[in-house]
Amino acid sequence: MSSISVIGTGNMARTIGARAIAGGNTVEVMGRDQSKAADLAKALGGGATTGEWGAVPAGDIVIVALLFDGVVPAVARYGDALAGKLIVDISNPFNSTFDGLAHHEETSIAQEVAKVAPAGATVVKAFNTVFRDVLENGRPDVFIAGDSAQAKADVGVFVKSLGLRPLDVGDLKMAHWLEGAGLLTVGLASHGVGHWDFALGATEFLD
Amino acid sequence: MSSISVIGTGNMARTIGARAIAGGNTVEVMGRDQSKAADLAKALGGGATTGEWGAVPAGDIVIVALLFDGVVPAVARYGDALAGKLIVDISNPFNSTFDGLAHHEETSIAQEVAKVAPAGATVVKAFNTVFRDVLENGRPDVFIAGDSAQAKADVGVFVKSLGLRPLDVGDLKMAHWLEGAGLLTVGLASHGVGHWDFALGATEFLD
Repeated sequence: MSSISVIGTGNMARTIGARAIAGGNTVEVMGRDQSKAADLAKALGGGATTGEWGAVPAGDIVIVALLFDGVVPAVARYGDALAGKLIVDISNPFNSTFDGLAHHEETSIAQEVAKVAPAGATVVKAFNTVFRDVLENGRPDVFIAGDSAQAKADVGVFVKSLGLRPLDVGDLKMAHWLEGAGLLTVGLASHGVGHWDFALGATEFLD
Repeated sequence: MSSISVIGTGNMARTIGARAIAGGNTVEVMGRDQSKAADLAKALGGGATTGEWGAVPAGDIVIVALLFDGVVPAVARYGDALAGKLIVDISNPFNSTFDGLAHHEETSIAQEVAKVAPAGATVVKAFNTVFRDVLENGRPDVFIAGDSAQAKADVGVFVKSLGLRPLDVGDLKMAHWLEGAGLLTVGLASHGVGHWDFALGATEFLD
């Protein structure tokens, strides 16, 4: 069982929160709009609570479920309130045409979060290659990148509690390429696959 | 049936050549070392022929199966001999530690090939996310990027003849992110999956 705080009250916050509750985890919802956070916590049920925006999260794992351009500002706003926490960035910094990243440097939102996160916090990139509908209804692989093996193991426990397979792709700098995999997923949906009910995963071909 | 020329005589040339023959395609092998090319053509059987390095390839689809830093020079060397051909870049420009690309610009070997290819040639990126052993023994998805829908359709016919699923990810600029997916595949092998007998693919979760 993991103790989760979700920063955000949108679709992805609701989907992750619901799966987290179903998986037996404790969930706190933190929203800039406190009433929206309370509404989501109530809708989630399962003992979900509401936290105050910017306060120390109740959860050990803090999932930032905001639009990509709100992630770094939110982590900076929380500041030392996130000391010692495991911050999970799930964002996709797509450009306006969804065929490139919003940043052209070889970085990622996760790496930028690490730059503003307080001492003792660790950052993991996860979930960004999974469309919301698939996360709600499917059993996709969940790719994970991070510099801390312990943090990745902790996120792995949480992912497994959702009935999903966590797959470590390496250090946090690989988050850049996971964001690229997010682009590929959109490209596949609109070109090769032709629908959105799929996810990238690792298919094994053992002899 | 497709008519294929493979530039290169290494492991990937042999594996693609063998699957191509098995799939009922015609195969020509072109090597800098003519005797190695002849040896490979003989080993492939199935009527495989040998072409002269730098001459007009017999195949409509020209698969450049060289180490990544040899791809652009080879295409430049062939020059107008590739006019009207469909050039397939399968390379992975990994850095020396296999955790980043050798180039840090937002480009790809495929895009660089397009810059030196002669008028009328088209370029498609394909196969780079598939480990050689998996290509030999498995049924991986084959991701394809390119600017020409006709060229992608032609490569798709070839990929299907190998018993594999072609998946279009979009324009040629997506080749950069396919190269990143190559990095993720290596990262997964050494971290999350723990072996090399797998490939990235699209798993569907239709209701």
